[in-house]
Amino acid sequence: MEIPELTLIDITRQAADNSTYANIPVAQVNDHVVRMSVMTEDYFWHLHPDSDETFLIIEGSVFIDLEDRTVELMPNQLFTIPKNIKHRTRPGGSRSVNLTFESATLTTICVEDPCKNF
Amino acid sequence: MEIPELTLIDITRQAADNSTYANIPVAQVNDHVVRMSVMTEDYFWHLHPDSDETFLIIEGSVFIDLEDRTVELMPNQLFTIPKNIKHRTRPGGSRSVNLTFESATLTTICVEDPCKNF
Repeated sequence: MEIPELTLIDITRQAADNSTYANIPVAQVNDHVVRMSVMTEDYFWHLHPDSDETFLIIEGSVFIDLEDRTVELMPNQLFTIPKNIKHRTRPGGSRSVNLTFESATLTTICVEDPCKNF
Repeated sequence: MEIPELTLIDITRQAADNSTYANIPVAQVNDHVVRMSVMTEDYFWHLHPDSDETFLIIEGSVFIDLEDRTVELMPNQLFTIPKNIKHRTRPGGSRSVNLTFESATLTTICVEDPCKNF
């Protein structure tokens, strides 16, 4: 991950540059990272055994499916998925943009069979 | 810091509930934290010896003064201040709202004399 120091990052512009699925580190914060995600289709059910994960929606809406409920997030809404909690993310419309805050060494374990490739 | 798990946090609503200076933890991410800040006046020159700090602007604009330059950030723009770098934040207008991502145990050292109280 190479993020130049002391550089202004324009999330709106970066999102405009990525019309389809993207998951790009935009800031390193100690041993954590801020990533920008563009979603155009459902992700797979998964969990992170080694990191919590906080979502902040920038554009569109994002559904977060948990085992016992679904949460819809709109721009400027934030939701944290504790480590080890199974979840799936889906764009509310045809395209969404969000940030995530998480460990830079986060591991993703797919809990679907078979798993979609991203 | 008590942040209930699996709770949707609406940054726009939280910002509306805080008309003057505020700095509130809104998500715990492992040993890191997301904080919402409302700024209505200049902060003091300071540094964090033990944490990088990433800013994301939500409303208004924020000036970040560094020793050799000033950066103005608009909504959806992000900027990371590495640990140990002296900085000062100022709202661009009468009020700004931003998020920061940083270590939950971050230390702040004022490098002004005297220091303003916040």
